[in-house]
Amino acid sequence: MARKPLWAIEKERAARRGPESVWLFGIHAVRDALENPARHCLQLVVTRNAADRLGGALEREGLAVRVVDARRFDAPLDPGSVHQGAALEALPLAWGPLKTVCAPTGDALVVLLDRVTDPHNVGAILRSAEVFGARAVVGPYRHSAPESGALAKAASGALERQPYLRVTNLAVAMEKLKAMGYHLVGLDGSADATVADVMTRGPLGIVLGAEGPGMRPKTREACDVLARIPAAGAFGSLNVSNAAAVALYAASQREKG
Amino acid sequence: MARKPLWAIEKERAARRGPESVWLFGIHAVRDALENPARHCLQLVVTRNAADRLGGALEREGLAVRVVDARRFDAPLDPGSVHQGAALEALPLAWGPLKTVCAPTGDALVVLLDRVTDPHNVGAILRSAEVFGARAVVGPYRHSAPESGALAKAASGALERQPYLRVTNLAVAMEKLKAMGYHLVGLDGSADATVADVMTRGPLGIVLGAEGPGMRPKTREACDVLARIPAAGAFGSLNVSNAAAVALYAASQREKG
Repeated sequence: MARKPLWAIEKERAARRGPESVWLFGIHAVRDALENPARHCLQLVVTRNAADRLGGALEREGLAVRVVDARRFDAPLDPGSVHQGAALEALPLAWGPLKTVCAPTGDALVVLLDRVTDPHNVGAILRSAEVFGARAVVGPYRHSAPESGALAKAASGALERQPYLRVTNLAVAMEKLKAMGYHLVGLDGSADATVADVMTRGPLGIVLGAEGPGMRPKTREACDVLARIPAAGAFGSLNVSNAAAVALYAASQREKG
Repeated sequence: MARKPLWAIEKERAARRGPESVWLFGIHAVRDALENPARHCLQLVVTRNAADRLGGALEREGLAVRVVDARRFDAPLDPGSVHQGAALEALPLAWGPLKTVCAPTGDALVVLLDRVTDPHNVGAILRSAEVFGARAVVGPYRHSAPESGALAKAASGALERQPYLRVTNLAVAMEKLKAMGYHLVGLDGSADATVADVMTRGPLGIVLGAEGPGMRPKTREACDVLARIPAAGAFGSLNVSNAAAVALYAASQREKG
């Protein structure tokens, strides 16, 4: 019998392991996760003081709570994480398939991120997407910020509410969305049209690339139209989370167009 | 002779010291500062490799350059600062008085920040302000993010281009701007009007408070009108830099109104 290739063995192992757990931290992020019935919580490491602040949120069936001394807080967090004495190991949220989450009713909005790796930016984008009522933020598994404590903190509660869907192939997901009736607007500083010109009624997807490289060629090709945020001068471009917020706002104004 | 009060002595001392220097870091931020003739540069700590990358930017009259081994990089930066082997001690930029910098010609735009303390947010706001062609970002001396390496990095070059004016009293600066002809729009999630409704032609100031507390009462009272960014649901609010970007974009759209 031929030997299985290494990648196949690793893939089987990963399937057996199930999704990798994440450590969320900080009173707000931990409380939001504990109060989310859809969130599978594994264990909580907490100081006495933080436990008091979390109060009723701790009363969750099956949750292992370990109260530790503040000086011996040993949850596996990055140094410098402002944990406020609370860290929760949990599984990433399972939002279900793209087709269901992004059901193309009314003026549905979806944000697509091509390899945006900074967790603070992705967190802020989830927050803006939730504020403007988007259906989901979609990014590829590889080269995207994974669900993490830093991302949850930047999302300021939105991680528990705004679906963050990771897909194997972003261009394929874009084709699926187009087949569902979505019109896909790619943000590109060199485009002729401006965002205000192209935000049509009906299901709309806003596509953003990473700062610097921008969208990959296949992502760009999968867009229906490219548009730019109008700048006053020649100076660079917006931070990607700010660009997403502006595009979401421009989309929210389309009924007025 | 009566003794001078302590605050007067401290004030005289501060005047003798001159402005506190700041340490900028990272290849891009350091190069931007070195290439800015208005920036008073004191000393550069740099690895051989970073010196090569900075190239011609190093040839600045009167600049003390100290080339150090990468393992002994001793510039006084916060741990975790991604300095890429380059750190520059410099003085904050002197932009001149509000009256000159914010000359109320045409559709002049100014951003006012009431106690926004996070350097990443203020840096991103400087970047957006520069993209949308604002005259300046204005904040109080106290309880605002000072010019710093982290702020410069988030500003992505805009710190050298977009005036960041610190004033003793924000409400007084707002009165001055109003006397100059500025119309001041305060962002407030509970306002009836939306930003698109109130962005008038002519000199315009956009006022934002810190996340959470929002504007202080005196700041709010000094606004001509309050407006909100329209949200789809009841979920919280945008990150302050995202809110600033949306408001700047809304202002940039006013010729179309």
